[in-house]
Amino acid sequence: MSGTTPDREGAPARRRGRPPRTESGDTRDRILTVAREEFSERGYEKTSVRGIAKAAGVDSALVHHYFGTKEQVFEAAVAVAFAPALHAPDAVGAGPLDGIGERLTRFFFGIWENPTTRAPLLAIVRSAVNNETAAAVLRRLIASQLLRRIAGQLEPPDAELRAELAAAQLMGCVMLRYVIKMEPMASADLEQIIARAAPVVQGHLTGA
Amino acid sequence: MSGTTPDREGAPARRRGRPPRTESGDTRDRILTVAREEFSERGYEKTSVRGIAKAAGVDSALVHHYFGTKEQVFEAAVAVAFAPALHAPDAVGAGPLDGIGERLTRFFFGIWENPTTRAPLLAIVRSAVNNETAAAVLRRLIASQLLRRIAGQLEPPDAELRAELAAAQLMGCVMLRYVIKMEPMASADLEQIIARAAPVVQGHLTGA
Repeated sequence: MSGTTPDREGAPARRRGRPPRTESGDTRDRILTVAREEFSERGYEKTSVRGIAKAAGVDSALVHHYFGTKEQVFEAAVAVAFAPALHAPDAVGAGPLDGIGERLTRFFFGIWENPTTRAPLLAIVRSAVNNETAAAVLRRLIASQLLRRIAGQLEPPDAELRAELAAAQLMGCVMLRYVIKMEPMASADLEQIIARAAPVVQGHLTGA
Repeated sequence: MSGTTPDREGAPARRRGRPPRTESGDTRDRILTVAREEFSERGYEKTSVRGIAKAAGVDSALVHHYFGTKEQVFEAAVAVAFAPALHAPDAVGAGPLDGIGERLTRFFFGIWENPTTRAPLLAIVRSAVNNETAAAVLRRLIASQLLRRIAGQLEPPDAELRAELAAAQLMGCVMLRYVIKMEPMASADLEQIIARAAPVVQGHLTGA
């Protein structure tokens, strides 16, 4: 997040409006990083474009310029946090269909077991549970990026419902293990959970 | 919420401290009803004992007298909202073990499909996702009242983990259908969901 040049330091007025072409990528990234942190810490409702701009050291107008409304800033921040999960369809596709359940389940828990990738996802779930706009953003992202791509590898006509039932098993495990932290689920050996969840995911996706 | 006697109207000072024995049940119930509404509307963090007391027309001291801390008021309010769900173990127990999955699944969705029973449960989930104290209350209640009673009907040694994996499938469906409202899950025919979820619940509870 450094990357500030002497030139810019000496010309703070430039922060208003569109910055020079060469700096715009850095500034956009910095805003996005700050936005992700703000949404993670405060949740969707308590975060403002103004607060993000202030924390990023830019004018609110620049945040709007790059991303649009608060909802669109959130969507961009969520997309970054969601990036590891978006590889799931690749992971799922890389192998025979009868191993799809285990590959998806392992990939999913791999993301949630890692504190670095878990934190932003937890923040998204928290925002989505409490705010309809944040829920809509999450919904669009899961639908377009994740479920439809997984469902695309399955047989019609109910491929999307199958993908969602599989996602429901995994998401329920997330709720009990990482959010509500129910025992024994919260401390159970991950391999034990995978051994029981993976066949269910497989069954939903490809079962009779 | 009427039940106010002329006697009491004329003697507001009585609202401080413990009310006469004959009125105490009514007052306690009224506080509990108001608390449930307040927690439902505002969530755990934004609700205060003072606000509950004000809305119920009593002194804060009386709320503390009946229930204790804010956490304990929440626990009592949650227990009321949770009451229909607490019949689940009975519903589950009423029949052969090989039908346990379908009975539990039908019972569970019966509660969530009904807007009257769904609203307070949604409020609890929202509070628990965002507040560690509220999560602890929900955790205790699910564990002591629901899962352990279901698990008690299953074979050791991993009965509790089995019950939680079954709960995870159902809870994930709740998240996608009622909270995040993903399609096609949100609008899918309930019988179609039950037909796919019930065997999974059965498998978790009694499978190999």
